[in-house]
Amino acid sequence: MILLCSLLLAFGNLGDTPSDEIRRVLDVQAEAWNRGDIAGYMEGYWKSDSLVFTSGGTVNKGWQATFEKYSAKYHTKERMGTLVYSDIEVVLMSEEVAWVLGKWKLVRKSDQPEGVFTLIVRRFPEGWRIVHDHTSVMHNK
Amino acid sequence: MILLCSLLLAFGNLGDTPSDEIRRVLDVQAEAWNRGDIAGYMEGYWKSDSLVFTSGGTVNKGWQATFEKYSAKYHTKERMGTLVYSDIEVVLMSEEVAWVLGKWKLVRKSDQPEGVFTLIVRRFPEGWRIVHDHTSVMHNK
Repeated sequence: MILLCSLLLAFGNLGDTPSDEIRRVLDVQAEAWNRGDIAGYMEGYWKSDSLVFTSGGTVNKGWQATFEKYSAKYHTKERMGTLVYSDIEVVLMSEEVAWVLGKWKLVRKSDQPEGVFTLIVRRFPEGWRIVHDHTSVMHNK
Repeated sequence: MILLCSLLLAFGNLGDTPSDEIRRVLDVQAEAWNRGDIAGYMEGYWKSDSLVFTSGGTVNKGWQATFEKYSAKYHTKERMGTLVYSDIEVVLMSEEVAWVLGKWKLVRKSDQPEGVFTLIVRRFPEGWRIVHDHTSVMHNK
């Protein structure tokens, strides 16, 4: 039984599809965000200078720059609010590449910004990671 | 010589990389746009109900719906303006899948909206086609 548990811990949930694995990365990100843990949220991103994060018409390159941008913009738990994903769609392009389309919403006391994101995710030895994130905000509700 | 010309016509520019081929699809799109030819512009997109086009926080599915949205929004040559791409970056994810990051600008008499786009392109027998387009507008200049 100890061996079985170790195997389950090592390999995740047996029978998971790549799509399940990718969704779990997003779930872990949202859980981290919602406990105010930006570093934990950032675990879902490729730790590379080639990471691309674009939102609001500007482009950020690199994991570190993205982390710093998030940390500066969401410097309090109140600013972070509660992140809710919906309408998640995962499309595999190959065994190692997929894209994800989804809607995001930040539930905060003062406002509830929302929009759409496109992610390009890639399978690395350590698991699926976001290599490109294009997030946009809905402006005309 | 006639044979050579036929071969060149059949295979495009010899020695082109996938990145060159993808950039040419975008060039052809911009040329079509700038002569007021939305159908020609749309040739760069995958003719499928699974095409994803998202901008301004909303998602459109399918080539036909995207074509109709463009046609309704840009119903005159003046509204279309002149489309200028810049800072185009093509990253191959496999032999058949790539993403493109770039900036767009519409030069019009009344205004000059601009922003960023992420494209996911896939190689089909007929050539590279956009399967997913996430376009956003720069709001805070």
